[in-house]
Amino acid sequence: MLNAVRIVLVEPTHPGNIGAAARAMKTMGLSQLVLVNPVSFPHQAATSRAAGADDVLQHAQVVNSLAEALENVVLVFGTSARPRSLEWPLCSPRECATQVLSHSKGGVALVFGREHAGLTNEELALCHVKVQVATDPEFSSLNLAAAVQILCYELRMAWLESGAGPVEAVPESIELASADELMGFINHLEQTLIRIKVLNPDHPKMLMRRLQRLFYRTRLEKTEVNILRGILKAMAD
Amino acid sequence: MLNAVRIVLVEPTHPGNIGAAARAMKTMGLSQLVLVNPVSFPHQAATSRAAGADDVLQHAQVVNSLAEALENVVLVFGTSARPRSLEWPLCSPRECATQVLSHSKGGVALVFGREHAGLTNEELALCHVKVQVATDPEFSSLNLAAAVQILCYELRMAWLESGAGPVEAVPESIELASADELMGFINHLEQTLIRIKVLNPDHPKMLMRRLQRLFYRTRLEKTEVNILRGILKAMAD
Repeated sequence: MLNAVRIVLVEPTHPGNIGAAARAMKTMGLSQLVLVNPVSFPHQAATSRAAGADDVLQHAQVVNSLAEALENVVLVFGTSARPRSLEWPLCSPRECATQVLSHSKGGVALVFGREHAGLTNEELALCHVKVQVATDPEFSSLNLAAAVQILCYELRMAWLESGAGPVEAVPESIELASADELMGFINHLEQTLIRIKVLNPDHPKMLMRRLQRLFYRTRLEKTEVNILRGILKAMAD
Repeated sequence: MLNAVRIVLVEPTHPGNIGAAARAMKTMGLSQLVLVNPVSFPHQAATSRAAGADDVLQHAQVVNSLAEALENVVLVFGTSARPRSLEWPLCSPRECATQVLSHSKGGVALVFGREHAGLTNEELALCHVKVQVATDPEFSSLNLAAAVQILCYELRMAWLESGAGPVEAVPESIELASADELMGFINHLEQTLIRIKVLNPDHPKMLMRRLQRLFYRTRLEKTEVNILRGILKAMAD
């Protein structure tokens, strides 16, 4: 289970944090690290801070975009410290861990943003659920690797507490749409809305973000995505 | 409550870890740091890794022995990764947090050992309860500041759950659609799908039931229903 969870770091600035994150992951039994455009990697500081979790670093996948990092996963959690104007489905690390357990078979990713700037709104839009650590509002500056540590710790605790198997598994007959398929649907929706003039491409952002949030929140199944795209196709005819 | 908890680091070798521990504490609302014979303190690496938790470092108390660090506390938790020959009362960070909550008035200390060697048996003998993070047995090398982060995180969670912490309000901006409004939307959707020939009114049942299930599951907001009906209206034009 824990091995099936992907930890994605978006544009980490300090290689030391990459190493510390790898160490944090390995102490909790996780191994899949994906780096989106790391500023410096591989790097001596990463290896040094990994303190023995070298294998996690060696097998780390380096990709060019968050979309690429999310291929073949069905559920994406985005970590965020900043409050957003548009309320996103929000959960705590503990709730996140329970959800990860029940979806790990399909592939799950936890996404962590840049040290200072976090995730952009566009990146957060690729995440289905927002996770927030309840830090002290007066000092919410959680280190990147510390955030990874807390999330991975909660995953391990949930896994240990679940005993043999996941607590609340998704029925086997239900197959969730992959992040790719969701993105494909959202793009199809956007194009269709432009065509029927609901969406003004010069001011598209709020409407699409709202719709994305709605459909991501609901954990669309493969069949549902097919139905919805069938409707879109008929609308454009 | 959180301010009354003392974090004690015994002979930390790397000043960077002291700074990272201070930062971990402050993000969780703790402030009392005690250092027993730190190898290098104050130190630029500590200040740099504290990343704004300078006040915790500035007020850190430096003492010569663990006994001195434990003056005026009623309950002492010692963290340890190593199994000991003599079985000690053992608890998880989560159980520790619950106990700390109920004893914080008298003063509680959480003691963390050296990076590589942990606590000596003599030092552990000064601790009332041993706390162990359930790391992966094959890689239990938790970083010092990461261990501090996990313990302080559990303290904060216990504190927030106890109701002592600030109550998190449900965002006022979100208003869910009523059952009526949902039904109105589903009827509107059905009529539109018939008009664009996606739905055959002679065999309507499975498709509408699937779509209904999808949209009911997601707990639509009033605004979202308005957006969706706006799209339906444009589709029919």
